[in-house]
Amino acid sequence: MKAYKDLAPSLRTIMTPGPVEVDPRVLRAMSYPILGQFDPEFTDMMNETMEMLRELFQTGNRWCYPIDGTSRSGIEAVLVSVIEPGDKVLVPIYGRFGNLLVEIAERCGAEVVIIEREWGGVFSQGEIAEAIRRERPQIVAMVHGETSTGCIQPLEGIGAICRELDALLVIDAVATIGGVPVETDAWQLDAVIGGTQKCLSVPAGMSPITYNERVEAKILQRKSIERGLQDKNTPASAKRKVRSNYFDLGQLQDYWSPARLNHHTEATSMLYALREGVRLVLEEGLQQRFARHKLHEAALVSGLCAMGLTLYGDATCKLPVVTCIRIPDHVMGESVRSMLLQYFGIEIASSFGPLKGQIWRIGTMGFSCNQKNVLHVLGALEAVLIWHGVDLPAGKAVQAALASYAEKKEEFTC
Amino acid sequence: MKAYKDLAPSLRTIMTPGPVEVDPRVLRAMSYPILGQFDPEFTDMMNETMEMLRELFQTGNRWCYPIDGTSRSGIEAVLVSVIEPGDKVLVPIYGRFGNLLVEIAERCGAEVVIIEREWGGVFSQGEIAEAIRRERPQIVAMVHGETSTGCIQPLEGIGAICRELDALLVIDAVATIGGVPVETDAWQLDAVIGGTQKCLSVPAGMSPITYNERVEAKILQRKSIERGLQDKNTPASAKRKVRSNYFDLGQLQDYWSPARLNHHTEATSMLYALREGVRLVLEEGLQQRFARHKLHEAALVSGLCAMGLTLYGDATCKLPVVTCIRIPDHVMGESVRSMLLQYFGIEIASSFGPLKGQIWRIGTMGFSCNQKNVLHVLGALEAVLIWHGVDLPAGKAVQAALASYAEKKEEFTC
Repeated sequence: MKAYKDLAPSLRTIMTPGPVEVDPRVLRAMSYPILGQFDPEFTDMMNETMEMLRELFQTGNRWCYPIDGTSRSGIEAVLVSVIEPGDKVLVPIYGRFGNLLVEIAERCGAEVVIIEREWGGVFSQGEIAEAIRRERPQIVAMVHGETSTGCIQPLEGIGAICRELDALLVIDAVATIGGVPVETDAWQLDAVIGGTQKCLSVPAGMSPITYNERVEAKILQRKSIERGLQDKNTPASAKRKVRSNYFDLGQLQDYWSPARLNHHTEATSMLYALREGVRLVLEEGLQQRFARHKLHEAALVSGLCAMGLTLYGDATCKLPVVTCIRIPDHVMGESVRSMLLQYFGIEIASSFGPLKGQIWRIGTMGFSCNQKNVLHVLGALEAVLIWHGVDLPAGKAVQAALASYAEKKEEFTC
Repeated sequence: MKAYKDLAPSLRTIMTPGPVEVDPRVLRAMSYPILGQFDPEFTDMMNETMEMLRELFQTGNRWCYPIDGTSRSGIEAVLVSVIEPGDKVLVPIYGRFGNLLVEIAERCGAEVVIIEREWGGVFSQGEIAEAIRRERPQIVAMVHGETSTGCIQPLEGIGAICRELDALLVIDAVATIGGVPVETDAWQLDAVIGGTQKCLSVPAGMSPITYNERVEAKILQRKSIERGLQDKNTPASAKRKVRSNYFDLGQLQDYWSPARLNHHTEATSMLYALREGVRLVLEEGLQQRFARHKLHEAALVSGLCAMGLTLYGDATCKLPVVTCIRIPDHVMGESVRSMLLQYFGIEIASSFGPLKGQIWRIGTMGFSCNQKNVLHVLGALEAVLIWHGVDLPAGKAVQAALASYAEKKEEFTC
């Protein structure tokens, strides 16, 4: 029999828009022995995690819990639970992950209408409002931070229009939660989906979500009790059942409620990780954490500009946690990425679709978002670009970043 | 701000039919720093894990990879990818998890036909064959090991009938994989779904699956490239698209193939855990591992019988990794379970639906399946039952188990 070797992954500096490096405290949490899913110690931990997630999402919503799957599982869970076949769903698209919302909504049986913005920009509030008034969708689904383009869509004001016209507003905040303000209640967002492997710096494998009573009302209309758990007192199942069992929020909220109605077996070690990751966020403080992300973004951008590189996208809507750079002419983008990884142990990202081969993307997210990493990536990128024949002012990038830190550290403490 | 405490879960002896205790080597694997999902070291590990899973599933199938979600996510991924709305699906039900297959298949739009067996027994090959010949389903979906009743359904011969009549045979082997023989190729199973948190002793959160060319052919007919990844060379999408994006095996196999077409972000730490868990299985050897499960089952059963307890279910189809016991008259089952947990740190399970309050279920799975645990649970259960007023021959149970070990250890080395 073939002998498989001991696990021994190399240590990387991960500066992509996710997954990013994981805080050692989170890694340690995953190494604790597990509890049974109905062990009172574990259900207490489930409740506590819900409480912590409320702070993270800045909401008073009762329902704040993780879906056991990667980020897009949270998106699909919300969409499949609120979309009934034939519902009209409006998706404003300004990058790859808007397309993902369309992809998922269509598979849920929605009639999807879209508005599109050229990649690199976002919509004005007025454009979105006009589309909502024109299309009168049951659901508006939007991406808050587009990692594919490094842009952030302002959400203020859109929730109010959705309430006025009785639409549900579903927000993909996978890239922003824990790194950029996501004000669920203040912005009147009806459902918000977060990701673990970006600004929360927890490994991929869970997706925390939250939703309010407006969403719950729709879910309850479609609720059913799982066949194997029914008894003679079980009410008749809804005719308009959700098309998924795994993602049926009506059943999931029963599992996360005091009823603890059996559904899946909660992913214990991932819950340990999520709890520790959110605990780290709350210990740091949301405002301090957002400021830290801006601080390191500023240093990174200073360094990149000092190197003579051009940022991609409209600067007025730049996502603080992802910085996109145009690949200089005559440079093989993948060769640069590969050399960064092989020689410097640094990972940065390429992009998708129309931007493939056009830009690099550097993430400054969560635990990876720190001074050491920013300075390391600037120094290494400079060296690799010079090696690739790019004419640039050697030494300037790191000095510019150091100057940015010197200037900004008076404003922020981090 | 509220201070949340350090994670400090109690150490438990987990003798349920899952989740069960996790091998410390697996816990350690999860504590390693992560790699990016397209890091060559990580994609090598993905390939290696597929190779290891082929040995576990006893198959030459190309496709053997995990779904990022708990066990039922693997079931739903296979069913939603092979079932087209209107397809006829036959489900032989002999416990709760047969009902789950119905639940999921119905939500996929299937016309589901069932045959039912009273809980505690299984079907003969002839009964299943007759139903297949009568109903002519496109898909037959069955549970291999029913943890709800502690029964195992023999599968030999059913695959051949399905091939003869052009039906696909989908097997839920969540409870059996790694503990009981699951011979994917020899039994002509078209798709098999395993679970991590049972006999593999990896935390819940992944579901390894395998499927053959017959299933792949159906998947390829329904294949599409994700909207955000399309370019001008992308072929037109299938009209009969899978109803889920997250569970679309056509897209998932592109992600697990050399094409590495972006889908979700693979759950890194869970993959580390799965790889280490399967590595432990292969190091032990499949046949040795199956024998070990039988050895400890025999000792447990000897002890329970010596205590005067009655096993539940037809002994001829007893699932070796789950032992069900009738709760003695006038004993509050939940009070016994609660005392076992609080005083002895042992978790055993109750059951569902018609068996709620009727039986206890004791698992002997994976890492939890060992001599220390079996002797500990017998001694503790005896003490708790005496405390609850049950008249039983004190001291006999552990002696019977010791005698069983003394006798059987000549046969097995473990």
